[in-house]
Amino acid sequence: MLTAEATGVCVICPTPFTPDGALDERSAATMTEAYVAAGASALTILGIMGEAPKLDAEEAMRLVRIVLKHAGGLPVIVGVSAPGYAPMKALAQRAMEAGAAGVMIAPPTGLRGDDATLSWLQGAAAAVAPAPWVLQDFPQANGVHLSPRVIAALAADPRCVMLKAEDWPGLDKITTLKAMMAKGEMRRIAMFGGNGGLFLPEEIARGNDGVMTGYAFPELLVRVVGLVKAGQMDAAMDAFEPHLPLIRTEHQPGLGLAVRKYVLTRRGIIAHPTIRAPGPKLSDATRAEVDAMLARLARRDPVAMKMAAE
Amino acid sequence: MLTAEATGVCVICPTPFTPDGALDERSAATMTEAYVAAGASALTILGIMGEAPKLDAEEAMRLVRIVLKHAGGLPVIVGVSAPGYAPMKALAQRAMEAGAAGVMIAPPTGLRGDDATLSWLQGAAAAVAPAPWVLQDFPQANGVHLSPRVIAALAADPRCVMLKAEDWPGLDKITTLKAMMAKGEMRRIAMFGGNGGLFLPEEIARGNDGVMTGYAFPELLVRVVGLVKAGQMDAAMDAFEPHLPLIRTEHQPGLGLAVRKYVLTRRGIIAHPTIRAPGPKLSDATRAEVDAMLARLARRDPVAMKMAAE
Amino acid sequence: MLTAEATGVCVICPTPFTPDGALDERSAATMTEAYVAAGASALTILGIMGEAPKLDAEEAMRLVRIVLKHAGGLPVIVGVSAPGYAPMKALAQRAMEAGAAGVMIAPPTGLRGDDATLSWLQGAAAAVAPAPWVLQDFPQANGVHLSPRVIAALAADPRCVMLKAEDWPGLDKITTLKAMMAKGEMRRIAMFGGNGGLFLPEEIARGNDGVMTGYAFPELLVRVVGLVKAGQMDAAMDAFEPHLPLIRTEHQPGLGLAVRKYVLTRRGIIAHPTIRAPGPKLSDATRAEVDAMLARLARRDPVAMKMAAE
Amino acid sequence: MLTAEATGVCVICPTPFTPDGALDERSAATMTEAYVAAGASALTILGIMGEAPKLDAEEAMRLVRIVLKHAGGLPVIVGVSAPGYAPMKALAQRAMEAGAAGVMIAPPTGLRGDDATLSWLQGAAAAVAPAPWVLQDFPQANGVHLSPRVIAALAADPRCVMLKAEDWPGLDKITTLKAMMAKGEMRRIAMFGGNGGLFLPEEIARGNDGVMTGYAFPELLVRVVGLVKAGQMDAAMDAFEPHLPLIRTEHQPGLGLAVRKYVLTRRGIIAHPTIRAPGPKLSDATRAEVDAMLARLARRDPVAMKMAAE
Repeated sequence: MLTAEATGVCVICPTPFTPDGALDERSAATMTEAYVAAGASALTILGIMGEAPKLDAEEAMRLVRIVLKHAGGLPVIVGVSAPGYAPMKALAQRAMEAGAAGVMIAPPTGLRGDDATLSWLQGAAAAVAPAPWVLQDFPQANGVHLSPRVIAALAADPRCVMLKAEDWPGLDKITTLKAMMAKGEMRRIAMFGGNGGLFLPEEIARGNDGVMTGYAFPELLVRVVGLVKAGQMDAAMDAFEPHLPLIRTEHQPGLGLAVRKYVLTRRGIIAHPTIRAPGPKLSDATRAEVDAMLARLARRDPVAMKMAAE
Repeated sequence: MLTAEATGVCVICPTPFTPDGALDERSAATMTEAYVAAGASALTILGIMGEAPKLDAEEAMRLVRIVLKHAGGLPVIVGVSAPGYAPMKALAQRAMEAGAAGVMIAPPTGLRGDDATLSWLQGAAAAVAPAPWVLQDFPQANGVHLSPRVIAALAADPRCVMLKAEDWPGLDKITTLKAMMAKGEMRRIAMFGGNGGLFLPEEIARGNDGVMTGYAFPELLVRVVGLVKAGQMDAAMDAFEPHLPLIRTEHQPGLGLAVRKYVLTRRGIIAHPTIRAPGPKLSDATRAEVDAMLARLARRDPVAMKMAAE
Repeated sequence: MLTAEATGVCVICPTPFTPDGALDERSAATMTEAYVAAGASALTILGIMGEAPKLDAEEAMRLVRIVLKHAGGLPVIVGVSAPGYAPMKALAQRAMEAGAAGVMIAPPTGLRGDDATLSWLQGAAAAVAPAPWVLQDFPQANGVHLSPRVIAALAADPRCVMLKAEDWPGLDKITTLKAMMAKGEMRRIAMFGGNGGLFLPEEIARGNDGVMTGYAFPELLVRVVGLVKAGQMDAAMDAFEPHLPLIRTEHQPGLGLAVRKYVLTRRGIIAHPTIRAPGPKLSDATRAEVDAMLARLARRDPVAMKMAAE
Repeated sequence: MLTAEATGVCVICPTPFTPDGALDERSAATMTEAYVAAGASALTILGIMGEAPKLDAEEAMRLVRIVLKHAGGLPVIVGVSAPGYAPMKALAQRAMEAGAAGVMIAPPTGLRGDDATLSWLQGAAAAVAPAPWVLQDFPQANGVHLSPRVIAALAADPRCVMLKAEDWPGLDKITTLKAMMAKGEMRRIAMFGGNGGLFLPEEIARGNDGVMTGYAFPELLVRVVGLVKAGQMDAAMDAFEPHLPLIRTEHQPGLGLAVRKYVLTRRGIIAHPTIRAPGPKLSDATRAEVDAMLARLARRDPVAMKMAAE
C-alpha cells in the first residue's frame, strides 16, 4: 500500500505500443524491469503521460497486470482521472483488486472556484474508496487551480497520501504547504514534484519527499534526489545540468511524450517510439537534435555512457 | 442509415438514472417512445448532454440497445467523442452493429489551428469507418473553432452526412455554409442547429434542415420547424416565444441539464431527475421558478396543456 | 455618490462613434438624455460593452464629461478595469474629479484561485480610493471565478457599494449572497444583475436591487423591475416575453453590441451603429432579422410602438 | 529602420521602477547602455515583459524617449499591442516620430480561427502604418494560434519585417516557415526566437536569424548566437548549459519577470527589482535560489565572473 511516508523516485510510465498501435506487452514488461533496476521506489501508470484516454478499459487492465507482475514488489499507482465518478470507481476497484498500491486523481477541466473544486475532489475520493489516493496538482493540463487551503482540506482525508505538486511556478507553493504541515495546519502527506524534473533540485531542497515524473533517465532523478537530501546541492547541480537540455526538450507540451518514447527506444527500454493516434510525430530535425543531445550526454554523464558505447 | 438528406427534429436524449445512480432502463424506454410520439425524425444518444463520459462501456451499450429497441425504426445517432481514436472506434463499431444509424464526433479541447483541427477530425472519421458521421461544431464546450473552410474540407468525406451547427453566435455561419454549398464550394450535407433551440426560428429561416437538441418539449421544436419551413415565420414566433423563457433556462451551462431532467420528470417522460455524480443539483428556488414557468406555459400553449391539467 | 442603497435600472451606455470612427459627441449627449427619459436611475460608461479599451485616455475623459453633463444629476459609474493599477488609479481620479459617482472594477483574465483573486481586487480597490466602487462578476468575459466567500470579503470594504452579478448560471449565487447578508455574514451592498437582462424577472425575484445592463429598450427593464418588486411576477413576464427574442439576440458575445447599436440607431437614440475597429459587422441577414423583431415588438408592446409608427 | 535583414540579439527591456512605483528614468538609461555594451543589435521596449499595460500613455512615451536617447543608434522596437486599433495607431505614430525603428504586434486573447486572426492582424498592420512591424507569435500569453499559412499571408505585407517566433513547442514551426521561404511560398522576413532563450541553440540551428528575449545575461545570448552561426554547436552548448538553470527560472510565467529584475539589480544594470503593482513578489527562498545560481554561474562562466567578484 502507498503511504504518506513515501519517498524517492516514482517513475511515470508511458504506455508502450507496437508500430500498428497495439499495446506492446513485451515492452511494458521490459520497461517496468528497467525502471526497477534504475532505482525507482514506485511506479505510476495510466497518468496523463500514459495516454490513458486512448486505451479501452480492457487494455488499461492488461497494462496494470503486466506492470504489477514485473514491478518486483514496488508500489504501483494507477491514474484513474475521468470526468465522471463511475468510471473512476470501476477502474480503481479493478486496479486495487489486481494489486495496485493506490490511485491518482486530477480534477477535470472546467471546475471553477475553490469550493466547487474541493467538492468535486472529495466526491472523487469517496468514489475510489477504499484506495489510498494521490492528488495531482497540474493546472497546465486542466486549468484547475488548487489553492493551499483546498489541498489542506483534501489532505485531511486519511486515504489521501500524496500530492503530486506540479503547479508552475510551484516552488513557493511547496514551501507554503510544508510550512502548513509544520504548523499543524495540514495533515502531513508525501509531497512529490513533477514537471518532467525541470526544477527537481530546488523541489527537493524546498522539502519535497520525492519526485514523480517520467524523464527517460530515471537514474539521474534518483541520483539528484539523493544528493540534495544529503545536503550536496552543488554536486546535485553538477549531475543535473548536463541533463537539463534533454529534460527541457521532454517537457514540451504534446511533443514531449514523443521525445521521451524516442529516447526510451534508443535506450532499449521500450521497443518502439509509437504514440497511439491521434498524437504528435517526431520530425527528422527533432530526432537529430535529440540524437545530438544523447551523444553529448554520453560524453559527460556516466549514467548515459552505456548507451553511447552502443 | 443516416443520410445527408435528413430533416426535422433529432432529439438529443439525456441518459436517465435511478435515484441511486444506476442506469434507469425503464425510463430509457418510455423516453424513447415519448420522443417518437412527439414527432422526432431521429434521436441522438450519448452526446454531451447525455452524460456519456460518466458511463462505462457496458452501460453505454445497454442504453444504445434500449433506445434502438423502442425507437420505432427512427435513425439513432450515437455520440462517440473521446480524446483517443481507439475508444471511438470501439464504440462506433459496437453501436453500428447494434443498429445505430450513424455516430457524432466533436473535437476534444486543446486543438489549435485549422490544420491540426482538420487533421484530428479526419483521423477520427477514419477511425469510425464505415459509419456515417455527424460533425458537431460546439466551441462553447471544447474551445475548438471550426472555420467554414475546415467544415467544407470535412464535408468532402461522403460518410460525413450532417453538421450539428451550434457555434454561438452562429447564424451568419449557417448562411456562409449554405452559400458555399449553393456555389458548389462544399458538398451538400444536412445542417442541424443546436444550442437548446435558442435561435431555432432564425436557424431554419437561414437554411438549416432541422434541429438536433434536447429541449424538454420536442413537440414545440417540431411545430416551429414546420411553421418556418412553411414560410409562416410570424406564427412560428407566436409558438416559440412562450417557450423561450424555459428554453433560456435549460440552456444554462451545467445547470441546464438538471432543469431539463426535472421538466422531463414533471412531464412523465422519465421517472427521476437524477444526474449521475458529479453534477449540479437544482435548488428549491430554481425548482419553484421552473414550476412557475411550466404553469404559465400550460396556460398559453396547447402543447403544454395536458401537463398542466394533472 | 453611489451608495449601497442603489436600486432600479442602471443603463450601460455604449460609446457612440461617427462612421469614420471618431467619438460621436452629439450622440453621446442624445443617448444620455434618452436614458434619463427612459427612467434610468443611474448610468455606467466605459464598461466592457463600452469599447473602453479602444479609446485613448483623452477620448475616455471626453465621454465622461459629456455623459455627466447630460445625465441630469443621475449617478454615473465609470468602468476603470485595466491589467495594471496605475491606469485604473489615473482614470478613477480624473473621473471622480469630473463628477462621477463611482467606478466599476472587473478582474483581468489570468487570475487563479480565490486568494490571488481577492488580493488583486483589494489592491485595485485601494488604487481607486477614495472612489466608491462596483465589483463586476462576469466570468464569461475574463475567466475569473468569484466565490461568495471572496465577494463577501471584498464587500467588507465600506467603499464597495455594489455587485454587478452576471455569473452564468447565476441565480443561485444571488440567493446565496442575499442569505449571507441576511445572516450578517456579509456586509449589505447593492446587487444588480447584468447579462443583457436575460434573467431579469428571476434576478429581481431572487432579491437583486436592480439591474445594470444596456438592453436597447431600457424602458422595458424599468417596467419589469417595477412589476416584480410590486409582486406582479406574471405581469412582469407578460411584459418581458415579447422582448426576450431581442434580448437573446443582443446577448450574443461579440456580435451583440453591433445588434444593440443598430437598434439604438433605429430608435434614434444614437446616430450611427458604428463599432470602432476591430469589431463585428452586422450582416444583411442579421439586420433583416432584427428589423423583423422590432416590427413584431412594435405590434405587441406599447413601449416599442412609437418606433414602429415611424 | 528595422528591416527583414535583421540579425543578432534584440534585447527585450523591462521597464524599471523605483521602489515607490514611479518610472525609474535613471535605470532606464543605464539599462539601455548596458544592453548596448553587451552586444545587442536592437532593443525592444513595452513588450509583454515590459509591463506595458501598467503604464499610462505619457509614461510609455517617456520610456521610449529615454531608451532612444541612450541606444547609441541601435534600432528600438516598441510594443504597441492593444485590444483596439486606435491606441495602437496613436502609440505607433508617436513612437515612430520619436525615432523608433518599428513596432511589435501580438494578437489579443479571444480571436478564433485562421480567418479572424488574419483579418484582425491585417487591420492592426494598417493601423500602425507606415511603421515597419514585428509579428509576435506567443500563444502561451494570448491563446491565439498562428498557423504557417496565416503567418505567410501576413508576411506578404512589405512592412512586416520580422516574426518573433515563440510558439511552444516551436522548433518544427521554424523549420516549416524557413522551408516555405526557401520555396518562395512566403516572403522572406527575419525570424527571431523568444521564450527567454530556453531553446536558443536549436532555434538558431533551425534557421532563425536571431533572438529577441530579455534573459538577464544578454552577453550569453550574443555568444551562443555567434557560436551556432559559426557552426560550433558543441561550443554553443558548452556556453549555454551553465546558464540553462537560470534561463529556466526566468522563464516561469508571471514570476519570471521578478527573477529577471532581481538578477538585473544584482548585476547593477537597474537600480531596483520593483515590479509595478499588481505583480508577483520574490520570496526569500526564491531569492536564495537565484543567489546560489548566480554564485555557481560566476564560478563557471567568464561572462558572469565580474558580478561574482563583487
